[in-house]
Amino acid sequence: MKKYTEMTRDELVLLKKDLEKAYQEQKDQGLKLDISRGKPSSAQLDLAMPMLDILTSGSDLHAEDGTDIRNYGILAGIPEARKLMGDLMGADPSQTIVFGNSSLNVMYDTIARAVLFGIMGSRPWKDLPRVKFLCPVPGYDRHFAVTEQFGFELISIPTDDNGPDMDLVEEYACKDPEVKGIWCVPVYSNPGGAVYSKETVERLAGMKTAAEDFRIFWDNAYAIHHLDYDHQRQVPNILEECEKAGHPDMVYQFCSTSKITFAGAGIAAMSASRANIEDILSRMTIQTIGADKINQLRHVRFFKNLDGMKEHMKKHAAILKPKFDVVLQKLDTELGGRGIASWNHPMGGYFVSFNGMEGTAKRIVGLCREAGLVLTGAGAAYPYGKDPADSNIRIAPSLPPAEEVALAMDLFTICARLAAVEKLLDQE
Amino acid sequence: MKKYTEMTRDELVLLKKDLEKAYQEQKDQGLKLDISRGKPSSAQLDLAMPMLDILTSGSDLHAEDGTDIRNYGILAGIPEARKLMGDLMGADPSQTIVFGNSSLNVMYDTIARAVLFGIMGSRPWKDLPRVKFLCPVPGYDRHFAVTEQFGFELISIPTDDNGPDMDLVEEYACKDPEVKGIWCVPVYSNPGGAVYSKETVERLAGMKTAAEDFRIFWDNAYAIHHLDYDHQRQVPNILEECEKAGHPDMVYQFCSTSKITFAGAGIAAMSASRANIEDILSRMTIQTIGADKINQLRHVRFFKNLDGMKEHMKKHAAILKPKFDVVLQKLDTELGGRGIASWNHPMGGYFVSFNGMEGTAKRIVGLCREAGLVLTGAGAAYPYGKDPADSNIRIAPSLPPAEEVALAMDLFTICARLAAVEKLLDQE
Repeated sequence: MKKYTEMTRDELVLLKKDLEKAYQEQKDQGLKLDISRGKPSSAQLDLAMPMLDILTSGSDLHAEDGTDIRNYGILAGIPEARKLMGDLMGADPSQTIVFGNSSLNVMYDTIARAVLFGIMGSRPWKDLPRVKFLCPVPGYDRHFAVTEQFGFELISIPTDDNGPDMDLVEEYACKDPEVKGIWCVPVYSNPGGAVYSKETVERLAGMKTAAEDFRIFWDNAYAIHHLDYDHQRQVPNILEECEKAGHPDMVYQFCSTSKITFAGAGIAAMSASRANIEDILSRMTIQTIGADKINQLRHVRFFKNLDGMKEHMKKHAAILKPKFDVVLQKLDTELGGRGIASWNHPMGGYFVSFNGMEGTAKRIVGLCREAGLVLTGAGAAYPYGKDPADSNIRIAPSLPPAEEVALAMDLFTICARLAAVEKLLDQE
Repeated sequence: MKKYTEMTRDELVLLKKDLEKAYQEQKDQGLKLDISRGKPSSAQLDLAMPMLDILTSGSDLHAEDGTDIRNYGILAGIPEARKLMGDLMGADPSQTIVFGNSSLNVMYDTIARAVLFGIMGSRPWKDLPRVKFLCPVPGYDRHFAVTEQFGFELISIPTDDNGPDMDLVEEYACKDPEVKGIWCVPVYSNPGGAVYSKETVERLAGMKTAAEDFRIFWDNAYAIHHLDYDHQRQVPNILEECEKAGHPDMVYQFCSTSKITFAGAGIAAMSASRANIEDILSRMTIQTIGADKINQLRHVRFFKNLDGMKEHMKKHAAILKPKFDVVLQKLDTELGGRGIASWNHPMGGYFVSFNGMEGTAKRIVGLCREAGLVLTGAGAAYPYGKDPADSNIRIAPSLPPAEEVALAMDLFTICARLAAVEKLLDQE
């Protein structure tokens, strides 16, 4: 197959005509498709419906420590939920707090707490002239939005399949005391699908950061979200690595069951060193009466333990994998070997990260939109929503049925090709 | 009956001996009682158990607007929950946001938002040299703790049965731009049981505050928590009053079902002017994916509407009233006419507010503790935990069974009498 970059102008002009025709045909179909957000599908949500039968009016609603979970009390979550969610994160229950349904909210509150009160006695970040935060890109738009709302200066760190560029991370974190943290999605990163390498994790844990209250925000959102349970990817335990390196307090880990049970009604959790946990609870005791313990117990009784949760995740994989296969097959077939794009082949998570020719991402998203396909906005995976190369697009195939994903990808690949040809003609 | 204050020294010495003997007998019983926190009893929590049967694996989990409530989405809560909780607060659904299980957390976040970002474009409170907050006393310790954590200067405002001293409130709020808000529990206030009078509400709503971003924090925690449904107390609708007075944005109203369904697993809500709601949602969209919508639907389907909720509250009243009757009967019998104490006769809510002789509250609480009865710490109902008169004690009879409340009050009244006699002898 001839690469577009090697075509003559005449060949490109001809190709453009063909693609415009194909695009028009797509448009005429009046499609209404959406692969913009990492939402689970109805079929996936159905998997957790039996959880609603677990607690009834006849159930014993005491936690294993005897607490009546219907009443006030137990700020850090019920013991059995701390065990379950701790196991999910490789953390001891005593190092684990279980919250309500939104891990994003937990992360937001963790940042807000540092801004308002500092961390373990450090100066509140609000009283500093400037706070900088490291943002591996492409990354999760909602992470970046949180730190943007607080007025931090966001610093993009390029990533590859092993995680963020550690030379650059160390350069910032170990030399500049205004750099206070880094966002990480270590397993099946959003959207790149990267799984941090052993070396990446060890280097992160080993950093002698310039700021004493620097924290790694380790959002382990997809820890057991493998697409193929015969080929699971894992990362070293960040809590253990930080402890080994003599920096036990440097990391906050987060997770949730949003993509395990119900996206809107799961439970979230956080783990960290005991000193961190104590620091956090001392503030939380003023903030809240604690999270919904009935939903915590519902989750524990449904899964019983981490193995039960993993078994459940295999059912998710069976629903998700065919959708990812469609995306990758269409990309490989329609765009492979043309020299105009690259994409990852994720082993888990919720996204395929697509890189078109420089300067075409916005155009591709616009073309798709016009023909009835909603994509995540170009640039969304970058701080301030600005992809300097205007190249990256996040593809989220989980929500629609596989047939719709196929239709969406037919349109998408036409648009990607058309935008590339336009760009090449423009450049001449 | 002779007042203690009219007794001779010899009479007091004799009385003291009797009371010490009675106290010692109490002590010898090895009691283990607790009337310290406003927690519902098991019997009350049992009332909501059928709610757990409402949603099962066979239920349709779509909101009335068609949203799949299991998934992400709908930041402000499902429409039917906004209607139900709005009705509870006398607010339109469009003016109402429904949250998770903790209204304290909602209030905390509301303060935090003002500190971090300001209100509707005002200067963030963190950037001001000083923020002052009005605290009607006696009041709710957890309210005061929130504003204390943020470093505000807390100003005590005396209250009577009609609510806070409005001359003083106006003096502060209308003249000092550093005064940014006031905590109010307008119905069956914690712990005084006051129900704000029409005049109080109208004067609050009519204030021309010095700070443009002054807010009334209207914690309507006990709106339908009557002890006797034949004698309900109500207050004017604060949202309407503020609008009428030309200050539609001046109030944030809060409520929850913590003392309607499950203390630890209810739903909370907030209402305010549409401009306020927009302001809040514009921040919340960065903070969270929204609250647990399944629990919202569970509540709506259980109660159907506000009438259903009120019917349910009558069952609570039937459990609570006998306990309050015991408290008041014991106080009236044992302490009435002795000139050493006063207390309110609440028509609803969770507390009886007791005022002993000046300088005896700590002593009473200490005597009770020593003999096996836990009370809320003396001074807890005042900013910084300091009751300048050392007189107020909050009695919370809801949690233990009525027989235990009776035992607790036997001990309590002996301690109150003993402390008074000690004080009188001390003064001579």
